[in-house]
Amino acid sequence: MDFKGQHILSVSQFDRPAVEKIIAVADQMRPYAAREKLSQLLSGAILGNMFFEPSTRTRVSFGCAFNKLGGHVRETVGIENSALAKGESLKDTAMVISGYSDVIVMRHPLEGSVAEFAKTSRVPVINAGDGTNEHPSQALLDLYTMSKELERFGSTVDGVHIAMVGDLQYGRTVHSLSKLLNLFNNVKFSFISPSQLAMPADIIKQLKDNGQEVIETDHLESGLKDVDIVYQTRIQEERFPSKEQADAFRGAFRINRFSYSQFCKPSAVVMHPLPRDSREDANELDTDLDQHPNLAIFRQADNGVLVRMALFALIFGLENKLAETETECSWRSL
Amino acid sequence: MDFKGQHILSVSQFDRPAVEKIIAVADQMRPYAAREKLSQLLSGAILGNMFFEPSTRTRVSFGCAFNKLGGHVRETVGIENSALAKGESLKDTAMVISGYSDVIVMRHPLEGSVAEFAKTSRVPVINAGDGTNEHPSQALLDLYTMSKELERFGSTVDGVHIAMVGDLQYGRTVHSLSKLLNLFNNVKFSFISPSQLAMPADIIKQLKDNGQEVIETDHLESGLKDVDIVYQTRIQEERFPSKEQADAFRGAFRINRFSYSQFCKPSAVVMHPLPRDSREDANELDTDLDQHPNLAIFRQADNGVLVRMALFALIFGLENKLAETETECSWRSL
Amino acid sequence: MDFKGQHILSVSQFDRPAVEKIIAVADQMRPYAAREKLSQLLSGAILGNMFFEPSTRTRVSFGCAFNKLGGHVRETVGIENSALAKGESLKDTAMVISGYSDVIVMRHPLEGSVAEFAKTSRVPVINAGDGTNEHPSQALLDLYTMSKELERFGSTVDGVHIAMVGDLQYGRTVHSLSKLLNLFNNVKFSFISPSQLAMPADIIKQLKDNGQEVIETDHLESGLKDVDIVYQTRIQEERFPSKEQADAFRGAFRINRFSYSQFCKPSAVVMHPLPRDSREDANELDTDLDQHPNLAIFRQADNGVLVRMALFALIFGLENKLAETETECSWRSL
Repeated sequence: MDFKGQHILSVSQFDRPAVEKIIAVADQMRPYAAREKLSQLLSGAILGNMFFEPSTRTRVSFGCAFNKLGGHVRETVGIENSALAKGESLKDTAMVISGYSDVIVMRHPLEGSVAEFAKTSRVPVINAGDGTNEHPSQALLDLYTMSKELERFGSTVDGVHIAMVGDLQYGRTVHSLSKLLNLFNNVKFSFISPSQLAMPADIIKQLKDNGQEVIETDHLESGLKDVDIVYQTRIQEERFPSKEQADAFRGAFRINRFSYSQFCKPSAVVMHPLPRDSREDANELDTDLDQHPNLAIFRQADNGVLVRMALFALIFGLENKLAETETECSWRSL
Repeated sequence: MDFKGQHILSVSQFDRPAVEKIIAVADQMRPYAAREKLSQLLSGAILGNMFFEPSTRTRVSFGCAFNKLGGHVRETVGIENSALAKGESLKDTAMVISGYSDVIVMRHPLEGSVAEFAKTSRVPVINAGDGTNEHPSQALLDLYTMSKELERFGSTVDGVHIAMVGDLQYGRTVHSLSKLLNLFNNVKFSFISPSQLAMPADIIKQLKDNGQEVIETDHLESGLKDVDIVYQTRIQEERFPSKEQADAFRGAFRINRFSYSQFCKPSAVVMHPLPRDSREDANELDTDLDQHPNLAIFRQADNGVLVRMALFALIFGLENKLAETETECSWRSL
Repeated sequence: MDFKGQHILSVSQFDRPAVEKIIAVADQMRPYAAREKLSQLLSGAILGNMFFEPSTRTRVSFGCAFNKLGGHVRETVGIENSALAKGESLKDTAMVISGYSDVIVMRHPLEGSVAEFAKTSRVPVINAGDGTNEHPSQALLDLYTMSKELERFGSTVDGVHIAMVGDLQYGRTVHSLSKLLNLFNNVKFSFISPSQLAMPADIIKQLKDNGQEVIETDHLESGLKDVDIVYQTRIQEERFPSKEQADAFRGAFRINRFSYSQFCKPSAVVMHPLPRDSREDANELDTDLDQHPNLAIFRQADNGVLVRMALFALIFGLENKLAETETECSWRSL
């Protein structure tokens, strides 16, 4: 896959070499993200950071990634004006807005809207979330993080055993990550969820058809046995038919110091797409693991900037120009 | 007119040489807007993009125009804080805010507010819309577009025949454009609207006093005969005393493949200030003309960036410094 | 105090040398703020301008200050997304957001929240207001302004006589400014307020313990006698138990041409944190002094940019690098 000039709309568009390319370019972004050097790769370029649905962290992560490559960022947050309410088509919106900037990152509450927009856009578009559908840069940063975390233990994504825990039916991130992992070999999936919130059958079929091993269980302890990666997600109470049913599951899928130390092997890495609920009665990932070296959740967030920088470089076809466009960082002394 | 250090508040402040100057400088902006080269004309300068009334496209268009000249953009969207609610005068607001940036673009819901603000501002102010009153950069981009479209047919704005269609009573854009066109010679105006929504008498008087030919009609077919430019606007139902009256006119002023091919000459150019309502029961400009080469609506939007870049260069008095401040665009290869 | 890498959270963290350092560096920022020269001091650096509570002027002032040092600005305005509502801890938010930018300016409605955030942040944080608690850059720009205004009369902050007028109980700015002034010698404070809205006893005790002279009065005329600085604040009606009580005080603490010329000495400087209520029935600072050379309220706002530029330079430890990173300003000719 040649990224140059391409839209990034779905994880489905990537083959394994494409994913490996993204990982390799993201690695190269570390010194610029860490401000050891400055990059002028996209100096003067303009990102249209179009968030028609509000989001602080994804929006700021993309914006900072573009700034770290030297570019300008123009933004919109929320459905500010009434163009849509006045009946403007996404096609018109795309024609107009794509005339302003050099690349567009777009989030929109409607499924399929970003792909629809991209059809008409005259510049490349990155999908930063279209409703419950796709958010490919999240899946890519998850995969990048897995790859880096496993590397610390001399391991790789090929042959990894991952447990996905929580709401696997409605969780956009676990669907996309599963699809990406299916590009690798001998991946073992433990899907741990209440049966009402199980991973959709079509995704499980894709994985099995490709020869991956899939375990489905609603039992946390057995599901976590021997896994390399625990990918925890939230279970939202409103997904259950009644509060009683939700309460019955409360705590049954909770990762904390106790469940981690009892059920997981010592090298198991804990991931979470964030934000997590840290309140006392929350039902996902407790803070008592915050000092644990294998808690990768904040490294995930940091890696998001690297992966987004990589996507920009690839889309502009400039991933080989990083060295020649770098400059000293005179102010980095903090 | 010398633009340097001037506010841009109303189309009334322009004479014909001023308008021609803007068109000429906008032409020079093409290579920078198209990213063939980068401009550092305003490198380090700061635009205060103050939208006290939300707007995505005008705001982003101005912001991108400033970035494309190398400058920084700081923004506000909406009446965020309660300074005004706390009784702060526009004079105080202007004194404070004009101390931050080097030039200000301002939209404000109140008629006359931007001019009031400009009186006190210590930096030049561009009116990006003050209620129903003025939005001069829209009229300028419309005029610029007309000029360029007519050029394709070896024609000019002098001697043009333009039809303005729709709500001519409340439409800010058609009022401003009419005033700008009145700076040219032998312009023929066909004002096509329901009689309840006719062009205001004072504007018609201005045009006639200046020797322009004016036709008023509520009949689309005869109104469009022989026109060079069709400038379509929306008719909002709520302008009519009753839904019945609105329904009676539904479709009577609609431009689409049928009415265009039946009533217009083949070289007629179709314009619209956008956004347009593309829903089935809309009453303005159908999508079935979208592939027609004479549909200029998206070129209008693109031209907005050129015209805004030109206004910035002129306000800073730097329209002759473009060549000496340009640099190569290393990343343009998309 | 060494500023490098430090958070700026409270006026309490400054000693007198620190405050004098800020004043000296702010002085050095004048040519860059006035665009006589451009600064590239923080070229390529990114400010995360995180306003979880909306504010136009403080936000834009910080953003422009950073741009005027050559840096990029990424922003958030309001509690846009539901991370907090979903139960995310400030600690998590800080871990994630501090991974994006090189320095953070943060406003948040909750008292203590910015300090809490700063504990976890991996980059320096400047408190731009945490509820009714602290807003140190406002106090610093007030002090800087006093210092500069007194300089015009050959005077200094040591030995100054300042009247603070209005609501002294709830006014965040007068509390912080009092604490900063307590770092100076022989300061005389006249606190003029309705007795229901008097300066808190603990602050008065701090000042007296340090040997400062303190007068408390609810009589404007006698309180203003011989003061060098009048620092006026608003009295909000809702602070009184009843509208009758509020009305009883209406006008009793109002500064205008009459009260100024009758009660103040000719060199008295008038300050106000802005915004001020300029409506007819307002109760604070009338516009009839707007042309008076000793009205310093707009110089305060301008000085805010200088002080914020100084804070950024100090936090990055680069206050001695201004000369070597400056460039010509080619566009300044307005």
